[in-house]
Amino acid sequence: MTTPATYDEFRQLAMRLDMSRGKPSPEQLDLSRALLDEAGTAGFMSRDGIDCRNYGHVLGLPEAREFGAQLLELDAGQVAAMGNSSLELMHDALAFAMLHGMPGEAPWSRQGEVAFLCPVPGYDRHFAICEALGIRMIPVPMTQDGPDMDAVEALVKRDASIKGIWCMPLYSNPSGAIWSDATVERMAAMPAAASDFRLFWDDAYRFHHLTDTPRATPDIVALCERAGHANRALVFASLSKVTLAGGGVAFLASSPRNIDWWQKHMSVRTIGPDKLNQLRHVRYLRDRAGLERLMEKHRALLRPKFDAVIEAFETLLGEVPGVSWNRPEGGYFISLYAPGGYAKRTVALAAEAGLVLTPAGAAYPYGRDEDDRHLRIAPSFPSLDEVKLAARGIALSLRRALEEAR
Amino acid sequence: MTTPATYDEFRQLAMRLDMSRGKPSPEQLDLSRALLDEAGTAGFMSRDGIDCRNYGHVLGLPEAREFGAQLLELDAGQVAAMGNSSLELMHDALAFAMLHGMPGEAPWSRQGEVAFLCPVPGYDRHFAICEALGIRMIPVPMTQDGPDMDAVEALVKRDASIKGIWCMPLYSNPSGAIWSDATVERMAAMPAAASDFRLFWDDAYRFHHLTDTPRATPDIVALCERAGHANRALVFASLSKVTLAGGGVAFLASSPRNIDWWQKHMSVRTIGPDKLNQLRHVRYLRDRAGLERLMEKHRALLRPKFDAVIEAFETLLGEVPGVSWNRPEGGYFISLYAPGGYAKRTVALAAEAGLVLTPAGAAYPYGRDEDDRHLRIAPSFPSLDEVKLAARGIALSLRRALEEAR
Repeated sequence: MTTPATYDEFRQLAMRLDMSRGKPSPEQLDLSRALLDEAGTAGFMSRDGIDCRNYGHVLGLPEAREFGAQLLELDAGQVAAMGNSSLELMHDALAFAMLHGMPGEAPWSRQGEVAFLCPVPGYDRHFAICEALGIRMIPVPMTQDGPDMDAVEALVKRDASIKGIWCMPLYSNPSGAIWSDATVERMAAMPAAASDFRLFWDDAYRFHHLTDTPRATPDIVALCERAGHANRALVFASLSKVTLAGGGVAFLASSPRNIDWWQKHMSVRTIGPDKLNQLRHVRYLRDRAGLERLMEKHRALLRPKFDAVIEAFETLLGEVPGVSWNRPEGGYFISLYAPGGYAKRTVALAAEAGLVLTPAGAAYPYGRDEDDRHLRIAPSFPSLDEVKLAARGIALSLRRALEEAR
Repeated sequence: MTTPATYDEFRQLAMRLDMSRGKPSPEQLDLSRALLDEAGTAGFMSRDGIDCRNYGHVLGLPEAREFGAQLLELDAGQVAAMGNSSLELMHDALAFAMLHGMPGEAPWSRQGEVAFLCPVPGYDRHFAICEALGIRMIPVPMTQDGPDMDAVEALVKRDASIKGIWCMPLYSNPSGAIWSDATVERMAAMPAAASDFRLFWDDAYRFHHLTDTPRATPDIVALCERAGHANRALVFASLSKVTLAGGGVAFLASSPRNIDWWQKHMSVRTIGPDKLNQLRHVRYLRDRAGLERLMEKHRALLRPKFDAVIEAFETLLGEVPGVSWNRPEGGYFISLYAPGGYAKRTVALAAEAGLVLTPAGAAYPYGRDEDDRHLRIAPSFPSLDEVKLAARGIALSLRRALEEAR
């Protein structure tokens, strides 16, 4: 493998690589080869005698709901097992809130301006839903323990137009934050001016550890209930980065009242999710232990790629003032912070060398990183050799951006 | 098989049968056994080298779009291949219209009251979407040639709050109407007061013939374009009643501008549909001829059930004044018309005998059949013997309802 030492050397390699999204690699998808190869053996009759080929069961196959409940440590009655992606569930929950309102409340679209708190940096697809629905986004700073809770509490307490906050409690995208117990407890307990305030709790990386010491967060549904806010949390989880990115099973978990609300509105939209895919998943993964064994194999593929990025950054950026990055313990991303004003230029220089990165600013509402500092690095998809090269390329692009300004 | 001659004899059989929905029978689902048994052999690489396991392709796998285009006789660029059911696509298209508006137009939710024309009797799930979204429903009478076009034209021309009409052009649910060329051409050409007026064209039974002489309807997308209303028609189609009711592939077809609109809003909701299921479907069905061969086998299973219902009605209701029914040439339903005021009582009497029918009035907006005449009969799911018995039971329940009033 060539090891470029300067931006010009990197550029001469004329790479053709798209690292813009957190996609699993083909090798990761191969881990669930049996899910496809043995799809014909899963059959179509569920444990309970449900013909999974036919219509029905809008909240999902009972055994898929039970599987989701085991993963999320909740009762199956609190869990809906749905289709292909948790993004769809988050979108639809927000669309239902806009069109119909939360249980017992007026539709958000008829309450004047509504707003969401957006810890930044955050997940661009969360922000895209808010933007499309006309929900005003209010950035709040992120720390390694989760959002700045003093800021969150102050805003939520006084402003009834704030209807929710985006939460990624474990290995946040893209900061890698692991929310502390205190953060999570304050989220559950804080007073909210809006009676229909919700935590959009995207537990995307619940099983996506990168270290030997898996981290966890407390049960937000139970904490909210105990704090007298039984309907506050909507929990989203997904098997897309466990089995097949484009053909997984997603879960919504919440209070019984919110699940009834979901069922009511989802029943108008569909006669039911693809129960055959749910059956295949349950029979393939079997239980939480089966899922965790599979996640170990993902980790074995992912960890070296993350290490390679960190190593390249340490080698090439360790001495550069104003540059920092995080060392994630899980999830799919590394955040690289350039000195203010140099993120966009770094992305442009990398693109000129044939390396497509996530656009600078993507991790901020409306794509606006006022400081132009943040870069989201997605090492999962390329091969390890490509990641090594690309990581050097990113570092060299940033150094060139800084040199240009001298 | 017992052949009850009176309502009391029927009731003594203590049937336990749910005929309320148009579900395919297990034997119909068995026709696509190979789609499940050989799921492992379809692999995951598309013709074009797309890894169907991964994210992406929000409008569907190119070969699935081409397959849909072949079925609908349109260009692949005008067809999106999506997930499990066309109902979801119809719901989402209406939800997008409410939230975002049609291309270049204001959101319907900000245009004051909006309304839809609903040919009656019609499909209860269409009406449920309108009701949930607060879209006022205006019934228009249905004939065997389609909706009463004089009424439709007069309303659409003068009332800008009317944003669309539900259309099932072939073997309409539940009247069995086959829309005439003249009806379809008038739909395409009629002036509309609302610039964002749309035909919600649910081509659910395009291939679901029950006779030797398959019927067809003209290409509504082309007709609309020719009439200067290029964006008027949104066409929905589905493989749910071709392969697997709960795990099919649905299509949206329209003008390029409407497909762009769909892509824009759907991209916020999802990273893409389940391309693996799309690949399995394309490799299993192969082409339109493959689909038509399969539909012949459906017909062989369905036709005797429809004949059994008609035969029982002729035997037991042929001489009863004010009673009529249709003889569908395709689709999933028979409409039975009782004398005014006797539909609800007939359903109740059938239920007392253990036979669950579609609730009377379900085929009308808000569930209101002012004349209380219409019954929707769904013969597809039960076995032929059960259908024979149930059909007699329905006829005997109606006769009893009439006798009670004497």
